[in-house]
Amino acid sequence: MGTLADIGERKAIALVERTIARSGSAGLLGDDCAALPLGQEYLLVTTDMVGRHTHMPPSMTPYQIGWTVVAVNLSDIAAKGGRPLGVVIAYGLPKTTTEHFLTELTRGAAACANHYGTTIVGGDTKETSEVALTGTALGLVKKALFMPRKGARPGEIVAVTGTLGKAAAGFLALQQGMTSSKVTKALLEPQPRLKEGQRLASSRAVTSSMDLSDGLSSSLYQLSSLNHVGFTIEWDRLPIAPELRMVKKRRGARDEEAAVLHFGGDYELLVTMQEAAFPAVQRRLRRLGTALTVIGTVTKRKDVRCTGGPSPGIVPNKGFEHFSGHVLG
Amino acid sequence: MGTLADIGERKAIALVERTIARSGSAGLLGDDCAALPLGQEYLLVTTDMVGRHTHMPPSMTPYQIGWTVVAVNLSDIAAKGGRPLGVVIAYGLPKTTTEHFLTELTRGAAACANHYGTTIVGGDTKETSEVALTGTALGLVKKALFMPRKGARPGEIVAVTGTLGKAAAGFLALQQGMTSSKVTKALLEPQPRLKEGQRLASSRAVTSSMDLSDGLSSSLYQLSSLNHVGFTIEWDRLPIAPELRMVKKRRGARDEEAAVLHFGGDYELLVTMQEAAFPAVQRRLRRLGTALTVIGTVTKRKDVRCTGGPSPGIVPNKGFEHFSGHVLG
Repeated sequence: MGTLADIGERKAIALVERTIARSGSAGLLGDDCAALPLGQEYLLVTTDMVGRHTHMPPSMTPYQIGWTVVAVNLSDIAAKGGRPLGVVIAYGLPKTTTEHFLTELTRGAAACANHYGTTIVGGDTKETSEVALTGTALGLVKKALFMPRKGARPGEIVAVTGTLGKAAAGFLALQQGMTSSKVTKALLEPQPRLKEGQRLASSRAVTSSMDLSDGLSSSLYQLSSLNHVGFTIEWDRLPIAPELRMVKKRRGARDEEAAVLHFGGDYELLVTMQEAAFPAVQRRLRRLGTALTVIGTVTKRKDVRCTGGPSPGIVPNKGFEHFSGHVLG
Repeated sequence: MGTLADIGERKAIALVERTIARSGSAGLLGDDCAALPLGQEYLLVTTDMVGRHTHMPPSMTPYQIGWTVVAVNLSDIAAKGGRPLGVVIAYGLPKTTTEHFLTELTRGAAACANHYGTTIVGGDTKETSEVALTGTALGLVKKALFMPRKGARPGEIVAVTGTLGKAAAGFLALQQGMTSSKVTKALLEPQPRLKEGQRLASSRAVTSSMDLSDGLSSSLYQLSSLNHVGFTIEWDRLPIAPELRMVKKRRGARDEEAAVLHFGGDYELLVTMQEAAFPAVQRRLRRLGTALTVIGTVTKRKDVRCTGGPSPGIVPNKGFEHFSGHVLG
């Protein structure tokens, strides 16, 4: 038996799931949200912790930290097609935290909730030695519209909303001392795809869905393992964020590739569906001003491959793993 | 503007509530749970963080830590008369955490959930520099049966379930190197009063209710401020835990008083109701094997007084405040 540094976040979560299963709890784990049956609907519940080690570049303001705690949780609701019901936040804060920090943190959290049509309905405050914030978001979705992680079938297409690599571009820009909010916003104030998730759900075409917070490669491998399928993605079809162009120029194609495939922090949605359904679904999202782009196909073969790009072939599974380090910088 | 060490937990929470109110969020703050309308019922949501500084004596096992994270949240559901729907947990854990610790933590959490008829339905794991665990419990209660904090009126009686000072007795016993599980269990594996809360709610007699996790004095002052009332409690009626007798013998009456009035950690319920309703409600709880004891009355005068005991008169408001220290030890 090792430590979490040895086994990494994914294996730690698997360990927790096995232990819960063994204890007789019929938990609904392994999806972005738990889905508890409630009449004709599912009550969606998700909890996400945001800590200094994992989500907070030093230049992040307390307002942005508060925003992010709410945004990362709403993104999980979005991935299931839900509408948010409310958010609670537990603040773990050091004694030395100032009232200004606490006020700004709360302003940011409330602003994000309000922006997405919901509210902060409760919370808790405890003393910790470093800032550790846990948000829990609740949502509802009609049972027939719920978009699970499990459901992808070989032959279907896989698609993403928006662009890939925006958060990585923000991270690299900050490293180089740039603070243009245009480039850093995706990293510091993520925008969950709630309306997009609801539209995708009501299309009834989506066979599996998750958010891209862990990065594209990690997310594809998670869908792969859960669905006993694989993916072939085409580098030339990936909707790479324009903000990443300067990365390629300054740091080379390999860093661009890592940013697009592995970095994570893009709160876009990753979905599968039959190819024939795609054009109508794409039109639904276009009406929201959001691109939906086919990036490849679901395969019987159980690995993740990339055709074209700087290193064609099998994509390594090295998404954003807490406990065992980052892929960039 | 000071730091949290200057203002303490209660004022920090008030600051958060004001900021949320100002931001236009119509949050339902200031109760044990948020209560979100859902047809004929309220969806109850509560979040509580358990950290090294506040809830974990050094001798607490990982199993007991897991149990406690779930128990403190279920206690808030209990105080509103709810039945639990599910619990999610966010683990903030250091890199050096062992698999054994994580397994035991999860076993304890799942055991507590199962013991109270519910399950762990989801979670998150992130790296932090110290252990910080956040549980969020969901519950349901018929709107007509919901027991709010707000509702106490002068002339009513105030009562508590079970006994007072069990957790303090456990804390003091551990300090003296005793580890008899009979004395320490209330501290290390708290037992939320879920069935009792549901019985109290279905009596429809309770006008206000909260749990005693913060200690008796702090809880009475919170009800006092919220209801614009006060309390007179009678020392000789307080159901002092038999485990505290040794404390009085060894450390004197003042420490016994602090343990009973201020220490906190007893997950009993504190309720108000009309005097005429009390006998029938007491009988309902007796059928569960749980005592319900009148400890005093609700007054127009807005302070909290104690008649009899080691220091009769106005009770100081120094319950269990994180950020600014403990009342015992």
